[in-house]
Amino acid sequence: MSFIDFFVLPRISLTFGIVKKIGIVGSGNVATHLVAALQNKGIIIAGLYSRNSTSGKAISARFQIPLFETMEAFNAVDVIIACVSDDAIPVLIPELAKYAPTVTTSGTVDVLAFQHTHPIGVFYPLQTFTKDRAVTFDQLPIFIEASTPTFADALQTLALKLSSEVHLLAADKRKELHLAAVLVNNFTNHLMTLAKNQLEANHLPFSWLQPLLKETVSKIETIPPFDAQTGPARRNDQQTIDAHIALIKNDQLKQLYIQFSKSIQTTYNHD
Amino acid sequence: MSFIDFFVLPRISLTFGIVKKIGIVGSGNVATHLVAALQNKGIIIAGLYSRNSTSGKAISARFQIPLFETMEAFNAVDVIIACVSDDAIPVLIPELAKYAPTVTTSGTVDVLAFQHTHPIGVFYPLQTFTKDRAVTFDQLPIFIEASTPTFADALQTLALKLSSEVHLLAADKRKELHLAAVLVNNFTNHLMTLAKNQLEANHLPFSWLQPLLKETVSKIETIPPFDAQTGPARRNDQQTIDAHIALIKNDQLKQLYIQFSKSIQTTYNHD
Repeated sequence: MSFIDFFVLPRISLTFGIVKKIGIVGSGNVATHLVAALQNKGIIIAGLYSRNSTSGKAISARFQIPLFETMEAFNAVDVIIACVSDDAIPVLIPELAKYAPTVTTSGTVDVLAFQHTHPIGVFYPLQTFTKDRAVTFDQLPIFIEASTPTFADALQTLALKLSSEVHLLAADKRKELHLAAVLVNNFTNHLMTLAKNQLEANHLPFSWLQPLLKETVSKIETIPPFDAQTGPARRNDQQTIDAHIALIKNDQLKQLYIQFSKSIQTTYNHD
Repeated sequence: MSFIDFFVLPRISLTFGIVKKIGIVGSGNVATHLVAALQNKGIIIAGLYSRNSTSGKAISARFQIPLFETMEAFNAVDVIIACVSDDAIPVLIPELAKYAPTVTTSGTVDVLAFQHTHPIGVFYPLQTFTKDRAVTFDQLPIFIEASTPTFADALQTLALKLSSEVHLLAADKRKELHLAAVLVNNFTNHLMTLAKNQLEANHLPFSWLQPLLKETVSKIETIPPFDAQTGPARRNDQQTIDAHIALIKNDQLKQLYIQFSKSIQTTYNHD
């Protein structure tokens, strides 16, 4: 607890770990999905502030939330959830925390290092949020970090209204988790883009891969991925690996194919 | 149709595109899943031949299929489905095709190039088959190639009993499809292994990534992967990319992370 924290009287609702009124900053995918999930559980959004006035107005109209013109309006809320890009956090968080306890939804930024008047923290829902696609929060893990134990309690209570999977997690571990999430989401998605491009260049439909894709992920619910590995690199079938490399025209994909085969062969002691 | 094909009288059942009796070669995952799917549709497996006597006996006992001691026994079947490794195909297929029309389940091998007495071909179900895990064939695409139109008809009729997604596909296209399948299955699976290792080195459970993994694949049913891409490389956030690279201890993963970021940045014109 910093010197400043000590002299700011905690709001009564936060003292008992209860968040009644929420303010939202941002109007992107995370803000949209979080607002939908909160309202779905009957939680009131007191107001929304967005630097992008077009998308801010759109989300305000869609969810019937007052649009705040200035940050001062957050004086009346229990928690501000800032769903903003990592770049914006260092300037925005200390500013917002002048008016109310504030969290970001970032997986990577070490938020507690910033100056703060009110308590600050992290409310990180581990999911990929896409426009026009509903997301179920029920079993989606939410990770909490806070500058005071009281604020941590309040954030956990709030998170538990959305999901049964709520964990306190410090920044160093959250960064490792975010890295793992990049591997299984961002990189898997890019593999799908590369596969689609490669199929379409040969006039073959990407939809043929759908059952395979589903099973690839489903089987990991019962089998560790180490045991589920199949394919030419797993069985050290250099002939097929070389044939595939010769087939690939995209140079970035060629490098990835070579690197993956090397990594799989190393993992299974074929090197 | 080769000179030899011409002098081999087609079996009556094949003339009408009907496969009544099937012989299976092999006793691995593909053989096991295919036998289960065929029996499930009431199709009779006349016999099974396997070089591995232990697993051959196991599958014979489990599915109540006669175990053939010699290949000559296949004289009485309409089709032999050889579920064997790519390495075994060049020797095995010409040998099996002395006794009955024969297919492999391989995605990569150019089967029609081999010598054959009876017709030969490919019966390639595009899926990842894992031990002790049931697979639904109903919508799983099956790709057919055959040395004669009559045999192609018979194979299509058989495949349609298992799945509604049956396509004729020549070897060159099948190889491209197999390459794409390696990307979305083998490489995605390896990313999961790397993510799991990296989480467990930090005492974090892999299960936290499950909802993310599911959504990563589910959203591709409605959104093209190009549009679904998110993450640091997509938004050209070099600071987070560098922070992740610094976190990674496994050198193979580090190289993959660098190569993926480069490929994503190139795809979205950030290079």
